[in-house]
Amino acid sequence: MIKVVAENKIKQDKIEEFLALAAKLREATNTKDEGCIHYDLYQDFEDPSVLTFLEEWESMEALEKHIAADHFKEIVPQFESLVESKAMRLYKQAF
Amino acid sequence: MIKVVAENKIKQDKIEEFLALAAKLREATNTKDEGCIHYDLYQDFEDPSVLTFLEEWESMEALEKHIAADHFKEIVPQFESLVESKAMRLYKQAF
Repeated sequence: MIKVVAENKIKQDKIEEFLALAAKLREATNTKDEGCIHYDLYQDFEDPSVLTFLEEWESMEALEKHIAADHFKEIVPQFESLVESKAMRLYKQAF
Repeated sequence: MIKVVAENKIKQDKIEEFLALAAKLREATNTKDEGCIHYDLYQDFEDPSVLTFLEEWESMEALEKHIAADHFKEIVPQFESLVESKAMRLYKQAF
């Protein structure tokens, strides 16, 4: 099992645009990607410009297939112009 | 529903000590705290000194009770001397 925290700090005037694209990616990922246990977008309570994908995948292989999928390759590059910064971490259970 | 990402960058020589304390906190939280949907510790694949609690709570109230609980007040202060840095974000669903 793999957990992913993909944090994005969005440009103030691009939040709606990011949300629209993210909704498409979320929909496609949840319907098409095998081994996807959880995949959703979350907004920081204090800073609405921080939008973070919290994900859970059955295996590294499932995650790699997601990253190679058409919907990922079509949508994720479009985020680049909308974000100020981003940070992604891949996690395994500590115990 | 509230998601919490509580990321800790641990001092290299303090990882085992942190893990031992975190195991106690995890055990107490999962058995005692009402409204706790998920509470576990995860280790970054690339940097084993990054140990992050990924949490899900039914409500802000449940999370506040957790923070006020004896096990939290007993254990969390002991993390201070073990960590180089930490960052916590509280999230709500974006859609």
